[in-house]
Amino acid sequence: MPVKGELLYEGKAKRVYRTDDPDHYLVEFKDEATAFDGLKKGTIARKGEINTRLSALFFQMLAGRGIPTHFIEQTGPREMLVRAVDIIPVEVVARNIAAGSLAKRLGLAEGEPLKRPVLEFYYKSDELHDPMINNYHIAALELAAGDQVEAMEGYAWKVNELLTEFLKPANLVLVDFKLEFGLHHGQVLLADEISPDTCRFWDSTSGEKLDKDRFRRDLGGVEDAYEEVLRRVERLCLNLESVG
Amino acid sequence: MPVKGELLYEGKAKRVYRTDDPDHYLVEFKDEATAFDGLKKGTIARKGEINTRLSALFFQMLAGRGIPTHFIEQTGPREMLVRAVDIIPVEVVARNIAAGSLAKRLGLAEGEPLKRPVLEFYYKSDELHDPMINNYHIAALELAAGDQVEAMEGYAWKVNELLTEFLKPANLVLVDFKLEFGLHHGQVLLADEISPDTCRFWDSTSGEKLDKDRFRRDLGGVEDAYEEVLRRVERLCLNLESVG
Ligand SMILES: Nc1ncnc2c1ncn2[C@@H]1O[C@H](COP(=O)(O)OP(=O)(O)O)[C@@H](O)[C@H]1O
Ligand SMILES: Nc1ncnc2c1ncn2[C@@H]1O[C@H](COP(=O)(O)OP(=O)(O)O)[C@@H](O)[C@H]1O
Ligand SMILES: [Mg+2]
Ligand SMILES: [Mg+2]
Repeated sequence: MPVKGELLYEGKAKRVYRTDDPDHYLVEFKDEATAFDGLKKGTIARKGEINTRLSALFFQMLAGRGIPTHFIEQTGPREMLVRAVDIIPVEVVARNIAAGSLAKRLGLAEGEPLKRPVLEFYYKSDELHDPMINNYHIAALELAAGDQVEAMEGYAWKVNELLTEFLKPANLVLVDFKLEFGLHHGQVLLADEISPDTCRFWDSTSGEKLDKDRFRRDLGGVEDAYEEVLRRVERLCLNLESVG
Repeated sequence: MPVKGELLYEGKAKRVYRTDDPDHYLVEFKDEATAFDGLKKGTIARKGEINTRLSALFFQMLAGRGIPTHFIEQTGPREMLVRAVDIIPVEVVARNIAAGSLAKRLGLAEGEPLKRPVLEFYYKSDELHDPMINNYHIAALELAAGDQVEAMEGYAWKVNELLTEFLKPANLVLVDFKLEFGLHHGQVLLADEISPDTCRFWDSTSGEKLDKDRFRRDLGGVEDAYEEVLRRVERLCLNLESVG
């Protein structure tokens, strides 16, 4: 078992610890939730455990289909061992259906399918409130090299395809999601988490929101929604058997 | 002389009229100025005349160097004849030095040269307050075809090069500028205006602002700044002789 060392970073949803191997970190998932740039704060019971399990399952599925990820193994109910990366301070958002800030910003009705899927970059900076940026800003600010940006774009599109197809038999629509990438010995790896905190999942039949929007918008049933996503994804994984 | 027909559109800075030729419009420049999304309103004496003259000179210079523009001829002190276009609702902004909204958004000091010049797209929509968009949003909203976006990008970079070089002997630094393009019988043409309303011009020696920021920020000497830019550009054109 890896040794939990120095707390390196405590974020809004996770803690990152060193281990005895400089190439590996331990990520601990918290139940705390924030929204609207930290203005709204709360706790979602069991979120830490659910997001750990879901992230583990998603990362394994993606790794099995050619996406290099930071995930190594789940080491506890709310803890995973990952490859240590230098996070590229660019959040990559993929969107299939208009929702949230995009719907508002572009005057689209929430739920309107986009004629073409959209990829967006945001500068990961709490002080600047994560402004939207483009490839030129990334170059001007030297946030990532051109080939790293290309890799992130390529992986994000591939993750969108794979995750969309993966979730279909679970009656879940992948509306949009946010990815973070990092550099591990020069290689671009998919990092951070994939969970109802970072994705919008809608029930394909009822359209019911099964993600953090229930918390953001005080829709109630937040814990139940997270549990429901985990139940469906675990069933998927059992059926597919291809994911551990 | 072209006949001034029906008023087609009155914007914040100009009026567009039909003529007896369906392929041609007359553009009339006003002295009225707005800023901050229309919140600040005022008048800049002689702005209409100055911006007409400056736009005419810039468009002629650019046309002579391979940029297809809507400009045909100046037909009065504040009036120019142009090719009728369907405006592509995408404002293209090029930036060489951090200033204004970019400096604020990315936490850069105003006046800091960018390590790489930046191009940005904004969705031209008063109701939505011109949100920043990227190539994917343009495709999803069907604002322009892929090859039209490429043409706009290519022309914007070329205009940046040409205008930067052109203005150097006038001791003017081209900090940033906004372009609009339109379709004329399927061809992408540079349209609208190029003036101290749509560009940031700084004196190369003193760094003095010689553009609409004097109005936006109540710096005084607004009219003098516009006059000064016109004087310097007219002198340039006399010297170069290559521009009429
Ligand atoms: N493999 C990794 N190596 C290093 N840092 C990581 C890794 N995966 C995720 N991180 C970072 O861990 C931090 C903690 O996560 P989180 O609590 O979500 O933070 P934040 O409040 O910045 O969203 C984030 O900055 C995230 O980018
Ligand atoms: N050649 C052209 N053909 C048709 N419309 C044009 C042409 N050149 C500029 N326009 C449009 O004329 C309108 C009037 O200009 P302006 O007063 O600056 O408007 P706005 O308030 O939208 O900025 C703008 O919508 C601009 O896009
Ligand atoms: Mg996070
Ligand atoms: Mg205008």
